[in-house]
Amino acid sequence: MTSELPPVPPRSVWWGWGAADADRSLSGAGLALLGRELGRPVDAVDEPPVDLPAVRLPDRLLAPSARAALTAVVGEEHVRTDAEARVEHAGGKSYRDLVRARGGDADEAPDAVVLPADADQVAQVLRVCAEHDLAVVPFGGGTSVVGGVQALRGDHAGVVTLDLRRLDGLVDLDPVSRTATFGAGVRGPEAERLLAAHDLTLGHFPQSFEQATLGGFAATRSSGQASSGYGRFDDMVLAATVVTPEGELRVGGFPGTAAGPALLDLVLGSEGRLGVITDVTVRARPRPAATRHEAWAFASFEEATAALRQLAQSRTLPDVCRASDAEETRVTLRMAGRSGAALRGLTRLRRLGDPCLVILLWDGPDSKTVDARAAAARPALTAHHGRRLPGAVARAWAAHRFGAPYLRDELLRRGVLVETLETATGWSNLVPLAAAVRTAISDAFVADGTRCVVQTHVSHVYETGASLYLTVIGEAGDDPLGRWGRAKEAASRAIVEHGGTITHHHAVGVDHRAYLPDEVGELGIRLLRAAAGAVDPQAVMNPGKLFS
Amino acid sequence: MTSELPPVPPRSVWWGWGAADADRSLSGAGLALLGRELGRPVDAVDEPPVDLPAVRLPDRLLAPSARAALTAVVGEEHVRTDAEARVEHAGGKSYRDLVRARGGDADEAPDAVVLPADADQVAQVLRVCAEHDLAVVPFGGGTSVVGGVQALRGDHAGVVTLDLRRLDGLVDLDPVSRTATFGAGVRGPEAERLLAAHDLTLGHFPQSFEQATLGGFAATRSSGQASSGYGRFDDMVLAATVVTPEGELRVGGFPGTAAGPALLDLVLGSEGRLGVITDVTVRARPRPAATRHEAWAFASFEEATAALRQLAQSRTLPDVCRASDAEETRVTLRMAGRSGAALRGLTRLRRLGDPCLVILLWDGPDSKTVDARAAAARPALTAHHGRRLPGAVARAWAAHRFGAPYLRDELLRRGVLVETLETATGWSNLVPLAAAVRTAISDAFVADGTRCVVQTHVSHVYETGASLYLTVIGEAGDDPLGRWGRAKEAASRAIVEHGGTITHHHAVGVDHRAYLPDEVGELGIRLLRAAAGAVDPQAVMNPGKLFS
Repeated sequence: MTSELPPVPPRSVWWGWGAADADRSLSGAGLALLGRELGRPVDAVDEPPVDLPAVRLPDRLLAPSARAALTAVVGEEHVRTDAEARVEHAGGKSYRDLVRARGGDADEAPDAVVLPADADQVAQVLRVCAEHDLAVVPFGGGTSVVGGVQALRGDHAGVVTLDLRRLDGLVDLDPVSRTATFGAGVRGPEAERLLAAHDLTLGHFPQSFEQATLGGFAATRSSGQASSGYGRFDDMVLAATVVTPEGELRVGGFPGTAAGPALLDLVLGSEGRLGVITDVTVRARPRPAATRHEAWAFASFEEATAALRQLAQSRTLPDVCRASDAEETRVTLRMAGRSGAALRGLTRLRRLGDPCLVILLWDGPDSKTVDARAAAARPALTAHHGRRLPGAVARAWAAHRFGAPYLRDELLRRGVLVETLETATGWSNLVPLAAAVRTAISDAFVADGTRCVVQTHVSHVYETGASLYLTVIGEAGDDPLGRWGRAKEAASRAIVEHGGTITHHHAVGVDHRAYLPDEVGELGIRLLRAAAGAVDPQAVMNPGKLFS
Repeated sequence: MTSELPPVPPRSVWWGWGAADADRSLSGAGLALLGRELGRPVDAVDEPPVDLPAVRLPDRLLAPSARAALTAVVGEEHVRTDAEARVEHAGGKSYRDLVRARGGDADEAPDAVVLPADADQVAQVLRVCAEHDLAVVPFGGGTSVVGGVQALRGDHAGVVTLDLRRLDGLVDLDPVSRTATFGAGVRGPEAERLLAAHDLTLGHFPQSFEQATLGGFAATRSSGQASSGYGRFDDMVLAATVVTPEGELRVGGFPGTAAGPALLDLVLGSEGRLGVITDVTVRARPRPAATRHEAWAFASFEEATAALRQLAQSRTLPDVCRASDAEETRVTLRMAGRSGAALRGLTRLRRLGDPCLVILLWDGPDSKTVDARAAAARPALTAHHGRRLPGAVARAWAAHRFGAPYLRDELLRRGVLVETLETATGWSNLVPLAAAVRTAISDAFVADGTRCVVQTHVSHVYETGASLYLTVIGEAGDDPLGRWGRAKEAASRAIVEHGGTITHHHAVGVDHRAYLPDEVGELGIRLLRAAAGAVDPQAVMNPGKLFS
């Protein structure tokens, strides 16, 4: 975070992550390791995405009257019905979305993509859509991995995707209060560049950082890799404007208030069901001039997570705080190549057996401050028998922190099933929940006549509990979506039955919708439906997402 | 906070705060100072409260069928219609409430007071009330200063107050996750005693601490004196159960989640409009073994608040953090008597003129830890030319931190008008907002042909802004409620017009209801109404509070 800001990466191609020519190569060590897990040479399969003209699109067309009305609001060039625009907005970036896109299936594409210039145009577009019976799908960076941007039309005559990229820029900055208001369509790296000009940072770095937007972070209650220090995105947001079919809602805006229920917290996580978030006001912090990287090894996941718990409960948390289980550690260290082997040797030497890797990063104004914070954290780490590893291990993690989605494209090309899921629970339930979900996934693959590797890490740490993030890797086979669907269902059931939340930071979308009633009750769903009904009586906003 | 826990104080008398025989005496120095401000000897007036039999109660009676149905649920002895029970539940503890109670006016008393034993009885009582067209007013400690517990019946045939004192005790404790579930009727000191048995603390110490309940803290988004370190009550609550007329709602329960809008945040601050909060799960922290007290003097309110801002924005905040303006400082130091005079001299000597007092408290496991935290805070204090005062000044504040409501009873007896109000805003707007509200209040008193003293302090500090708390003291005169009503209206308008929230921690109730639309918009009110309608279709829950 202390380094110079890299350029803002291009928007993602329709079939994958980032630019078409981005580096997606796996290391030799990675290929060898993966080949052993799969029991075949990785490059035995080579399935590139189909060409754009081969993608199958639904043949629904926007009614001419609706098209004219939308054009009147945003202009001809901002109502797009060409194949490229529709395919680009057919879905998000889940494994399912990418398998379908690469295979040429875009049957969840919108009838049109509309690009409003500002909140006023958004309001007018919503009125047109309500009049013409069109469902509206808000679209920020399109990085949803839970079906949040599929262009479902529900009971409506058609469906329009609202791409918010033109709602850009820094709208307002208060350097004294350290708050900044951004257009909802601003992407992570753009926000950081705009703040860096004032020597400030947002500190929100989810894996989707390069592509996702501030409006999307708000709509999905995103949480970034530095959440231990900078908070979840919902902790950073002070206010938001939501344009609903019934008018504009401005929520939040005070550092603390007792003026009734927090409507801001009804908007955060609303996933487009209440309206379109058009701007967000966030807390900013000084851009760190120093970052300290530490890597530690623990003898078990129990010990590693106990150390994280002690850090959280003694209020000595680093800004980034991540503990991998033995499986993920094994892969991480091997993928790191030669220097990884050296580290493994080092760790073995210290009799830790199958170690668990912990990565810790501290940000601050100078090295003295970050060193002091790191020193304050030391007792928690040594109390659980942590052994210090070279800082290079943590720096290697940081250098590749946004890299996984690129590698995934390459794995998909090589016939590998790779997907992630996540949950959170109280500390006392963390290790049992992790075991239950891992077992559910492994059993599902075995029932499918195959096997998988499940890696687990904790990367969001709170005083009362933590997140669990699982990465599943296996052979795609003939029916990859069926195979993953069965594993995902087993995992979701295990999460719900063992006291986890159905999602810690990926949101609900379509994929978790069936499990939300387990979490908030049927009465909770009724509350959400009533709230949506108050601002969207015709239910045009993002049908099929969050709740049905 | 390190001292032994004092005994749990008796519940408040109907005409004032705490026990009838509690110490309410003003110091000699306080009497003299106040006399000078009022321009008359304080004890020239002596108006004790009327006797209980003289209190005027509405002659509404509970219908015999309703009474029988309620009795069937909770038992004869828990349906109270005697004068004492009704008078005790006629209102909260605002200046208005106390003036009315002392004068024998209880026309906002309920028809009956019902004391359910548990959540199941609450659910049954709500069904009975819906069937018999009775409004329901949830009642915790009865400490509302905004009309939150007045027994308004709205359009209903009658009104019942639900006293939740029997929903007591520690229901569940998870020492690993450090979470505790309490019955909603548990009062602050009871919660601290229950947690202290496990060497834990909640750390929530509002001025109402001795009387208010955990359910009340949740229903009103309370914030305590140690909010800088322990957070607002809404930061501490992880989950709550709300019994609504349509069934039970269990909200929250995970350390972090992206599973849709945060329904817990719709319940927090709902002030009884959604249902009755029957239990809350809170985060607990280790009971501090050491507390460090520091007092600092600054040359101006601008400098004092700038120091607090730097503490907040450099993440070196103490657990208690409070800055008084020159007016409040003058009173505080004089009230402290001889030692105050010594301090004043000391401060003058250092050429600070009319100083502003800052009180800082740090909690921790040992003196080394709190000393280190205090050392980390020093640069922010010295950067704004703070001068260290003897720690005794801070310890004197801490010793009397819950004392003001007792003194207020004595002031009312002496014909003094005394009331407080509060707001919050961003740092860049803090000093201007304080000036605008002070001026509005002073002008209102002048328009009334009299004058007042307005003291201001900041006591809740955030990275992006802070609270403002104003204490107003004047001559009650012949029409004290009219006089205060005019000043309060002027203050509320100034707050809304100058970018403050209408309440930082006193909640909305009846008194701030008219200003909530300024803050959340008419559409926001429509959202709240829709949410309430989903769980309380007959609108029996606490009518007239929060929104109309």
